[in-house]
Amino acid sequence: MNTTHTGPVHPSVRAVSPLRPASAARIEDGFWAERRRVNAGISLAEGPARLEQAGNLANFRAVALLRTDALASTGFSGDFQFQDSDVYKWLEAACWQLADTPDEALAAEVEAVVGVIAAAQREDGYLQTYYQLGGGIPWTEPGWGHELYCAGHLIQAALAHHRATGSERLLDVARRLADHVDSVFGPGKQADTVCGHPGVETALVELHRTTDEKRYLDLAQYFLERRGHGSLSSGADRGHDRDPGAEYWQDHTPIRAADEVTGHAVRQLYLLAGAADLAAETGDRELRTALERLWRDMVTTKTYLTGAVGSRHDWEAFGDPHELPADRAYAETCAAIASIHFSWRMALLTGEARYSDLVERTLFNGFLAGAGLDGRTWLYVNPLHLRTRPHERPGDQTARRTPWFRCACCPPNVMRLLAALPHYMATADGSGLRLHQYATGVYGGDGLTVRVATDYPWDGTVTVTVEDAPTALARTLSLRLPAWCADHTLTVNGAAVEGGAQAGWLRVTREFVPGDTVRLDLAMPARLTVPSPRVDAVRGCAAIERGPLVYCLEQTDQPGRLDPDEVTLQPDAPLTVHGRTELLGGVRTVSVPGSLLPADDPSADWPYVDHASAAPGEPRECVELTAVPYYAWANREAGSMRIWLPLARRR
Amino acid sequence: MNTTHTGPVHPSVRAVSPLRPASAARIEDGFWAERRRVNAGISLAEGPARLEQAGNLANFRAVALLRTDALASTGFSGDFQFQDSDVYKWLEAACWQLADTPDEALAAEVEAVVGVIAAAQREDGYLQTYYQLGGGIPWTEPGWGHELYCAGHLIQAALAHHRATGSERLLDVARRLADHVDSVFGPGKQADTVCGHPGVETALVELHRTTDEKRYLDLAQYFLERRGHGSLSSGADRGHDRDPGAEYWQDHTPIRAADEVTGHAVRQLYLLAGAADLAAETGDRELRTALERLWRDMVTTKTYLTGAVGSRHDWEAFGDPHELPADRAYAETCAAIASIHFSWRMALLTGEARYSDLVERTLFNGFLAGAGLDGRTWLYVNPLHLRTRPHERPGDQTARRTPWFRCACCPPNVMRLLAALPHYMATADGSGLRLHQYATGVYGGDGLTVRVATDYPWDGTVTVTVEDAPTALARTLSLRLPAWCADHTLTVNGAAVEGGAQAGWLRVTREFVPGDTVRLDLAMPARLTVPSPRVDAVRGCAAIERGPLVYCLEQTDQPGRLDPDEVTLQPDAPLTVHGRTELLGGVRTVSVPGSLLPADDPSADWPYVDHASAAPGEPRECVELTAVPYYAWANREAGSMRIWLPLARRR
Repeated sequence: MNTTHTGPVHPSVRAVSPLRPASAARIEDGFWAERRRVNAGISLAEGPARLEQAGNLANFRAVALLRTDALASTGFSGDFQFQDSDVYKWLEAACWQLADTPDEALAAEVEAVVGVIAAAQREDGYLQTYYQLGGGIPWTEPGWGHELYCAGHLIQAALAHHRATGSERLLDVARRLADHVDSVFGPGKQADTVCGHPGVETALVELHRTTDEKRYLDLAQYFLERRGHGSLSSGADRGHDRDPGAEYWQDHTPIRAADEVTGHAVRQLYLLAGAADLAAETGDRELRTALERLWRDMVTTKTYLTGAVGSRHDWEAFGDPHELPADRAYAETCAAIASIHFSWRMALLTGEARYSDLVERTLFNGFLAGAGLDGRTWLYVNPLHLRTRPHERPGDQTARRTPWFRCACCPPNVMRLLAALPHYMATADGSGLRLHQYATGVYGGDGLTVRVATDYPWDGTVTVTVEDAPTALARTLSLRLPAWCADHTLTVNGAAVEGGAQAGWLRVTREFVPGDTVRLDLAMPARLTVPSPRVDAVRGCAAIERGPLVYCLEQTDQPGRLDPDEVTLQPDAPLTVHGRTELLGGVRTVSVPGSLLPADDPSADWPYVDHASAAPGEPRECVELTAVPYYAWANREAGSMRIWLPLARRR
Repeated sequence: MNTTHTGPVHPSVRAVSPLRPASAARIEDGFWAERRRVNAGISLAEGPARLEQAGNLANFRAVALLRTDALASTGFSGDFQFQDSDVYKWLEAACWQLADTPDEALAAEVEAVVGVIAAAQREDGYLQTYYQLGGGIPWTEPGWGHELYCAGHLIQAALAHHRATGSERLLDVARRLADHVDSVFGPGKQADTVCGHPGVETALVELHRTTDEKRYLDLAQYFLERRGHGSLSSGADRGHDRDPGAEYWQDHTPIRAADEVTGHAVRQLYLLAGAADLAAETGDRELRTALERLWRDMVTTKTYLTGAVGSRHDWEAFGDPHELPADRAYAETCAAIASIHFSWRMALLTGEARYSDLVERTLFNGFLAGAGLDGRTWLYVNPLHLRTRPHERPGDQTARRTPWFRCACCPPNVMRLLAALPHYMATADGSGLRLHQYATGVYGGDGLTVRVATDYPWDGTVTVTVEDAPTALARTLSLRLPAWCADHTLTVNGAAVEGGAQAGWLRVTREFVPGDTVRLDLAMPARLTVPSPRVDAVRGCAAIERGPLVYCLEQTDQPGRLDPDEVTLQPDAPLTVHGRTELLGGVRTVSVPGSLLPADDPSADWPYVDHASAAPGEPRECVELTAVPYYAWANREAGSMRIWLPLARRR
């Protein structure tokens, strides 16, 4: 048993992984500390009550009761086969929180939930309350059953529990379930297929990393290679008359042959995360090349400015290349999380800074928008544009903050990422330490420990002070130079370091001694960003960004509640940054002069006009517009919002 | 019984309707004659075989058999409660075709189908095979049951049958069903609610017009006024766990109070068509004002350049105002048809030309694209942009021509509109004749009959020769001046007529004598059209139009199969028209020089760049692009297509 592992992803000693997560990582103050304080104090604390209310915990108790008193047992609560996973995700989040900050009440709550789960496990290791409570025959509905998906989340929770507390209580449950899965799935066994929803792959690799049990790695490999050969079909599953097609669950082509990310975005990215773990453990170059190709396809043609992915409401799917509507963006919070999972594993696998660039962008924008500032309201979808009176239907996932969802995958997923966040900040090994993300705190491993002080993302100064270093041994401290940053200075103990970044990394190599100070100043002016001409949906528009943050106009901030849909920017409009400590928990806003769009001709019956006779679109009245960070939108009164603002055309 | 009525919409003598459809209308040659020839010779002729194959006709036979030999009867074939309506729509189409051109084989086919339908009707008048074959309890599932929707289509088929043949055989079936509906629905009766899918309203008004039975008008009025008070709910219906919300079926607000078209586009527009019929019969000014408001809302904020409506795949719904994506346009063929139904009734109700302007645009573009040139393949959705390798899922309605659909509402709906098309061309009354649309043929009524000769839409010359006119009585011949036309000349017997159009109508008033010739020349240069700055999805783009036709670039026509997604136009690019008799059944193409978009930086990982440093986008290599009429797209090899082309920006 490897008991030194911390965090959710920890390559084994055999892994072909140039980077390893830092063994010590604590976020102590600043932006993320505040978000994590709300996560622990409100979201996590209220989680069990939500899970009781939605019936998720009752399902486990009902299964246990079924064994002793079948008549007293109740049926399954909830609408989805995968309800158990909400419990597992909360549990995983709670364990990472405990690993960071001991909390007796939370620890007791965790043990209670572990007990409830353990009591529901069948003798042979099977565990999924939906099927145990009569929902059907286990392992006969691979497409929609979500049994391996739930198993994956249980394993991840168990690893968090083990890594946080040292206990093997839940890990035993997870191993028994994994062993049962291993007895059922495989060539010539009862089920020679995969699960409609990936997720078990990362979990099995990680279980292997902790237990050194090779069977788990082999099983993950089997699931990866079996996929893409059309073994899934809706037809076998009851109650699903809509066939989503093999692309939906990435069963249309083997991952090694795929050249596009397609289908359900969360499924695609959980699968790729698992493949990256496998590539690290096995050193499989072909697989790594496929992952690099697919990551690039995603980033260059299917990712929003916010880092969000999965543009279609239909089937929660990736769209065609460059199909990135701002208004009808699905951009599920869970897909942003899955993208971070995938990119972080690619950062570990390759050592390249670009993966952590995307992690940063997604964290601060597409992901964080999913969590309300109050810690108890959520967004499932994260559009980049909302009109004044949006037409939402009850069946839609709407762009309004909601206390919980009928399909509540996102809230506990946010919780576990925020709780595990320190793990994504730094890597350490014998050669030194790399800072992938910037947050005040302490990071270290393999003898080199530093203290970081910064007001990131509001300010671009990052001061790194060495707290501990090996004596008389040269080490490299690497700081990621964010791709958004056009100008920076780096000093070591006050002396400027010449030379730029190498492939995104600023490197300082020396025999560090405690007290050494490396200071990075990232110029952080507000800037206008324009899209590739291939992104049809936002042609002719610009977005305001500052540092890693994407900004948006919310109607409530504009003079006279002016609708952001009615404005246009001059391409050379000056951007001014304002500190606003009282607003939205303390933000910097960006103001910019804008003009009103030409008024519609009230007699015009038709919104398309002859180009030759089109009015030159005289800019009307000038107004001062105020942009706020996108992550903080939809926390005040309802109104329209937009990130992409039309640029006035020169004629 | 009013036996002088022709066509699907014929206001009664009491109606407050300034215009009445011309009693004589024959399309004899040219563009629409060719489309109608294919419709009659292929689509209609093959309809019964399709309906057999899909099981629709078997359902009626199974019901009849149930009565005599329950054990021998088969269950319901098909997936939808409303399968019967496909049969009714085909039947209606066949009857309009017979009204136009006698055809013994088709007449026999019609009578056979009428017999099959009549044999399935229950003693009390009820008729819907889905419920009669055990699908549930009649009249208990108003939301999804589609019973009144099917009843509406049966009534419309019966009226077509009666108006075409004089027979009352199917009309009797329809009346018995209508009487049964009247006995079930109403305040204090078994069902005080409406049908989830409108359609019965137009049918009942029209049934009233033929039978003079006021109960049918009252029943239509009841359904109209009852709607909007939340009487529908998904909950009551089995098998529908997704609640679409009251807006979906326009049950959220009474039509008189509505200020936006919302929800399922076909439902909304069938409802508005019924309301327009009612307003005509009752003279209800408040209702007319509401209809004018809703039509304007649709046209100014929710209609594509092609006339198509209903932008969302989700719930087949209207989107938010100006939410008009070109790529993810749903734009169902049936919604285009419903829009034509609504606009034509508004033209009759108001006499205003703008309604027929929209009918023309929708007919030539958003509607006609739904019908393959071969008469046997169809589009359900009609996007304005298709990328090279679109990601389609089996559950999607795709943008590929398909021989039939599981939900086959569109094909027979196209058939009935094409078959009834002459009815939409002209109106006639004691004051004279109005030509709403231009097609070679004969149009007349109330003593004034004209022959029209034109090569419309390829050429803008329309020659109108008087064939018959009342002696020594002044009459007005009105010709619609299309809104797209910037320049025209009008002559009477060779002498120029001074003065422009009044509210869209060019009027010639005189004592016409046979042989009088009115000639209208509409200038028809190819032109570039740009969208309102409020239509986000196509900002910075222009579309090529010529006359009433919207053009598009298909990949197959471009040099070297250049992807239309890779081009940009100079705003002053010259447009050249070419006659191409061999192409797509004979079209005029438009050629225009374009440039290639700047190549993507192959090293760039991110499709968003700093505005200040953005490359000026040097136009690359110049290429000659070829545009074809949009209605003819997707009839050759697969490839990308776009209507809206980016305009190169001046910097």
